[in-house]
Amino acid sequence: MRIGVVAPARAIKEEVAARVLAFAAIVFPSVDLVIDPQCFAEAGHFAGPDELRAETFLRYANDPAFDAIWFARGGYGSNRILDEIMPALKPAAYRKRYIGYSDMGFMLGAMYARRVGRVAHGPMLIDMGTGGGDKTVTRSLDWLTGGTRGLEPGLGDRPAAAFNLSILTAMIGTPWLPDLTDHVLLIEEVGEPHYRMDRMLWQLSQSTQLKGIAGLRLGGVTDIVENDVAFGEEVEPMFEKWARVMGVPYLGRAQVGHMRDNWVVPFGMRG
Amino acid sequence: MRIGVVAPARAIKEEVAARVLAFAAIVFPSVDLVIDPQCFAEAGHFAGPDELRAETFLRYANDPAFDAIWFARGGYGSNRILDEIMPALKPAAYRKRYIGYSDMGFMLGAMYARRVGRVAHGPMLIDMGTGGGDKTVTRSLDWLTGGTRGLEPGLGDRPAAAFNLSILTAMIGTPWLPDLTDHVLLIEEVGEPHYRMDRMLWQLSQSTQLKGIAGLRLGGVTDIVENDVAFGEEVEPMFEKWARVMGVPYLGRAQVGHMRDNWVVPFGMRG
Repeated sequence: MRIGVVAPARAIKEEVAARVLAFAAIVFPSVDLVIDPQCFAEAGHFAGPDELRAETFLRYANDPAFDAIWFARGGYGSNRILDEIMPALKPAAYRKRYIGYSDMGFMLGAMYARRVGRVAHGPMLIDMGTGGGDKTVTRSLDWLTGGTRGLEPGLGDRPAAAFNLSILTAMIGTPWLPDLTDHVLLIEEVGEPHYRMDRMLWQLSQSTQLKGIAGLRLGGVTDIVENDVAFGEEVEPMFEKWARVMGVPYLGRAQVGHMRDNWVVPFGMRG
Repeated sequence: MRIGVVAPARAIKEEVAARVLAFAAIVFPSVDLVIDPQCFAEAGHFAGPDELRAETFLRYANDPAFDAIWFARGGYGSNRILDEIMPALKPAAYRKRYIGYSDMGFMLGAMYARRVGRVAHGPMLIDMGTGGGDKTVTRSLDWLTGGTRGLEPGLGDRPAAAFNLSILTAMIGTPWLPDLTDHVLLIEEVGEPHYRMDRMLWQLSQSTQLKGIAGLRLGGVTDIVENDVAFGEEVEPMFEKWARVMGVPYLGRAQVGHMRDNWVVPFGMRG
């Protein structure tokens, strides 16, 4: 079992990679985890220039010798390479599993729209952190190797998808947003003030592309930025309200987000 | 000539209103400027609850005794009342002029889509500030009274529209975005880091609804928030690049934005 690690947005530190390699060698001894040096590249905000990030992803995705791709980190930037990579995917890319979240929602969404492999929202290498992230990253390694121990506990018999709210709303109105009709949508957010979350939830509720979703679940909303005056509404009631405006049921909380309690959500059916 | 002032998003201070009234009484003596007390209301982030803001706007818009509406301030929140106000507009509302910018882009966009009155992107009462905003607010009062002295100098013979980038992208994929085919689009932004602006410009470039615009002009980009690492790209080249990806000409800078040098852009033809 060979898993390639690439970073279509921001870079990780070599120490994080070393910790994950050491951990995986013990807990997943049958896994050959290949972390491409591109994961440590730096070009302004990004893990190397667009061309390098696109080329690296394609090299692993199109290589039949790799069984899966694990994204190293989010940040910002995978949207910038979609135009280049999506038309260049070869048959081997369609037989792999891919996992990540946050900015990687652009990748997952675009691949899911094209039925490229099996994609899931879940922990990345960066979540190993400075220690303590063992359980978190185990969920992704387990899923990439065919396991189900890391699945988000509330997934039922309906198709699901999970997104960071900022990333999902950035795909609205573009051809990159997949058809999520009849899907339960799990939403998480990090580092936003209430008024921005409200504006994004409004866009979600008004979006013509998302009219047919089956329901909404609210994941972690972490590192909320303070408004200059208190917004006057709490996150969960805001979320419930916009679900009502959208005409879809609010189905409660979900264990996804920028936190340790981030579980795996395969797009589509959980099986 | 009666002009009503309302605040569909955030509140202004009474001192600002007093300064604008005193100034307008001297420079525009024929104008009866009626500032509704709703402009000073406070409910969390907003200038009063959604119901009050909607009711106040409708009361002035639908009153034949008022010739124009001047928005007091942006902030956040006019999107939350569109559902209630747009279907309730009466014939008198269709004969007025309306001016504002920033969050008011939701109002301008929704009204322009429905051919409600004549809408323009331009200074608001809040721009009087603590003094020094005389020339800035004069442009809006001039336009509301039928003048052309405050028009953005680069407006040509093509239809135009101007938006804050965050507001424009929040309308993408919703029925509130007007058809901007063949329009030159002027874009301004305030208080965003580079990576967010890049993400929004990407969404703009990928938006199926905006495919037919005639060109892009870049207004003021003020109070840029620093990234944790330098983004590595400057604003104008970013803007030019996404215009190229979008397949529309970049037509240079524009005098619109969160700054004194904010001129009037009537939506559609300038006349």
